[in-house]
Amino acid sequence: MVDGTNVVRELTVDLGERSYPIYIGEGLLQETSAYLEQHGVSKKSSLMIISDDNTAPLYLDTLVSSLTNAGYTVASAVVPAGEASKSLSMFENLITKALEAGLDRKSTIIALGGGVVGDLAGYVAAAYMRGIRFVQIPTTILAHDSSVGGKVAVNHPHAKNIIGAFHQPAFVLFDLKTLQSLPLRQVQCGLAEVIKHGLIWDESFVDWCDENMDKLLALDPEALGYALYKGCSVKAAVVSVDEREGGLRAILNLGHTIGHALEAVAGYGELTHGEAIAIGMIGSALVGVKLGAPQSVYEVTKRVFGKSGLPTRLPAHFDTDAIMSAMMHDKKFTEGSIVYVVPTAIGRVEVRSDVAASLVRETVEQLKQEADWQ
Amino acid sequence: MVDGTNVVRELTVDLGERSYPIYIGEGLLQETSAYLEQHGVSKKSSLMIISDDNTAPLYLDTLVSSLTNAGYTVASAVVPAGEASKSLSMFENLITKALEAGLDRKSTIIALGGGVVGDLAGYVAAAYMRGIRFVQIPTTILAHDSSVGGKVAVNHPHAKNIIGAFHQPAFVLFDLKTLQSLPLRQVQCGLAEVIKHGLIWDESFVDWCDENMDKLLALDPEALGYALYKGCSVKAAVVSVDEREGGLRAILNLGHTIGHALEAVAGYGELTHGEAIAIGMIGSALVGVKLGAPQSVYEVTKRVFGKSGLPTRLPAHFDTDAIMSAMMHDKKFTEGSIVYVVPTAIGRVEVRSDVAASLVRETVEQLKQEADWQ
Ligand SMILES: NC(=O)c1ccc[n+]([C@@H]2O[C@H](COP(=O)([O-])OP(=O)(O)OC[C@H]3O[C@@H](n4cnc5c(N)ncnc54)[C@H](O)[C@@H]3O)[C@@H](O)[C@H]2O)c1
Ligand SMILES: NC(=O)c1ccc[n+]([C@@H]2O[C@H](COP(=O)([O-])OP(=O)(O)OC[C@H]3O[C@@H](n4cnc5c(N)ncnc54)[C@H](O)[C@@H]3O)[C@@H](O)[C@H]2O)c1
Ligand SMILES: [Zn+2]
Ligand SMILES: [Zn+2]
Repeated sequence: MVDGTNVVRELTVDLGERSYPIYIGEGLLQETSAYLEQHGVSKKSSLMIISDDNTAPLYLDTLVSSLTNAGYTVASAVVPAGEASKSLSMFENLITKALEAGLDRKSTIIALGGGVVGDLAGYVAAAYMRGIRFVQIPTTILAHDSSVGGKVAVNHPHAKNIIGAFHQPAFVLFDLKTLQSLPLRQVQCGLAEVIKHGLIWDESFVDWCDENMDKLLALDPEALGYALYKGCSVKAAVVSVDEREGGLRAILNLGHTIGHALEAVAGYGELTHGEAIAIGMIGSALVGVKLGAPQSVYEVTKRVFGKSGLPTRLPAHFDTDAIMSAMMHDKKFTEGSIVYVVPTAIGRVEVRSDVAASLVRETVEQLKQEADWQ
Repeated sequence: MVDGTNVVRELTVDLGERSYPIYIGEGLLQETSAYLEQHGVSKKSSLMIISDDNTAPLYLDTLVSSLTNAGYTVASAVVPAGEASKSLSMFENLITKALEAGLDRKSTIIALGGGVVGDLAGYVAAAYMRGIRFVQIPTTILAHDSSVGGKVAVNHPHAKNIIGAFHQPAFVLFDLKTLQSLPLRQVQCGLAEVIKHGLIWDESFVDWCDENMDKLLALDPEALGYALYKGCSVKAAVVSVDEREGGLRAILNLGHTIGHALEAVAGYGELTHGEAIAIGMIGSALVGVKLGAPQSVYEVTKRVFGKSGLPTRLPAHFDTDAIMSAMMHDKKFTEGSIVYVVPTAIGRVEVRSDVAASLVRETVEQLKQEADWQ
């Protein structure tokens, strides 16, 4: 689809009757109403936009104008930025707002923001009247991940993402212009998941990332559009086969077994999710090599994360016992067996349940010895 | 299926890959573990029973014994009886309990109680880790209705059932023995929905209710088993065609447009749901006759509710304006048009959106003038 002089990339997340498109292009935000109309969103029922207080000041007005100019009735709710907003009490506040705004069964909730807003707004949409329409306008690179697959959730004080649903959006609109305001650390964090999608599925895309990392870090729209398109495509391919996490979807956890444990033991704000899984993916590559993958799996993995500026080494002060015990509590343990995603080549992984804890422990120790990438 | 000397009635709620059976018979509670085994519920993951403080003292021990004797690990949570437990804060407590009990993705939540426990426990099961297995053991007659169709929810202070999901159980187990302890008012309340299922779908079943009302009120197991079987069958037939409330499912709202409005304006505890919809169904019959249905629709409707001891007249102190305005706020209004279910014959209804508010107002007034049934 070509829109003026800008290319709009489009891909479909193929989930039978729940299939939906993702549009990626520059300046799409101001055209949101046209996309809603194209998707048959009626003007008789109110819409509600949910955003956070970093994103709203930058982009909410543009979105609201697009909608009201087209004749939609719009309510907005702005939550504090940050993971703490993915709570049941924020969820309740938003349900109250939805009731006050008169949302009915034909209403649509629009998420404008990163993964936090997407997960939170998506769960509100999943629960309100047992499920109303949902549209995602992700404004972070990381949200390319959360916008595919329909996983929505809030956190419980004792466990992340434990209260949620599978609720697929009607469509996803990625406006590359909104990504220009992302702080570098958020850019890198999102790139970690982009690279992950290459590592599990597509060697040539890993090579492309390796060669184009400078452009990605500079938020070059053409490079970014392509990377988001590829990242979403891989995730879409995986979830199309396994919508409800029966099997294949486990490969998306590459680097996350160690990564989640690092997040659990790290001090507040010490590691972003992307940083934690970058270290986790280096760890997985080490495990892979120990189990027979070629040494180049480790080398390429380390190089691409190194170029992105993500950490490739675990800071020495992290306690290995604490990391191992956090791993044991992770929800990926089903009936006592651990699911571990091991690379066998660049672009190929296998899910194994026989990886010894001792091997993982050894790897965690080794991650502290890693030389910095330069 | 025959079990010892007792007949176990079985029917299937046909929802494709989400299809599930309902078992109805005497003494099934103590055999719950056998049903779980038959449905492949693993003993490696913990179960959690959710019940209320009326039902738990009567039946929880029997259920727990059945499960632990068979080798299941079981946690229990007991909530205060009553609609107030269908709240987001009770939901949060139960999620915490589930986490503490170590429930994982392969765990099962069992609802032991009436519709309140079923809706609440079902929503916990729908949300926990984005959905785990759910089994219903309904202990009220009314819960024959709530156990078919997968609608689960909690209430918001401003709206009933507004926070929820569609989450189908793995199976439903109706032990007729547990119904023997039901107070008469609860029996009548449940029969209102049983009769409703006849009125919308099956004239001969309405005749059967008319003839067997004494047995039903006396909780005769054979009559009760048949009535629950028929009631569930009608509801199952409707939801099989329309799982997510796109169309046909609206006929299940017979009597509920007026009924919900009466509940909204009634003083606390003045009307049960069954009493409110019984009056509502008399009202719908009156509307039906005004719109051309034979007078007998009204007569039969009134007789069968009269025999059951449910009210057939609206107490005079109810304010018609308040009722009409409550009706306007009901969530069945979609894009401004009202959905009203009108009988055209006994066992047949149509969903109309052209019923004038003035006709409904006139009917509400008329309901206050009704002669008592004797
Ligand atoms: N549902 C899924 O499948 C899935 C997958 C991955 C991650 N997630 C969830 O996503 C969340 C993380 O997502 P995230 O990294 O996008 O976090 P986020 O939403 O918190 O965004 C990161 C930060 O960037 C700010 N921000 C967002 N857009 C911006 C913009 N365009 N310009 C400037 N600042 C902007 C935000 O306000 C926030 O401070 C986590 O809660 C995680 O659980 C969900
Ligand atoms: N999900 C659905 O499709 C659906 C359909 C209809 C109703 N509902 C919901 O069901 C609820 C009403 O169901 P209900 O009438 O069963 O209410 P309930 O669960 O409150 O039970 C009624 C009363 O009977 C008590 N009780 C339950 N079993 C008993 C037994 N065997 N012996 C003695 N006492 C017993 C309960 O403790 C309670 O006090 C409402 O919240 C309604 O919204 C849901
Ligand atoms: Zn991740
Ligand atoms: Zn009802």
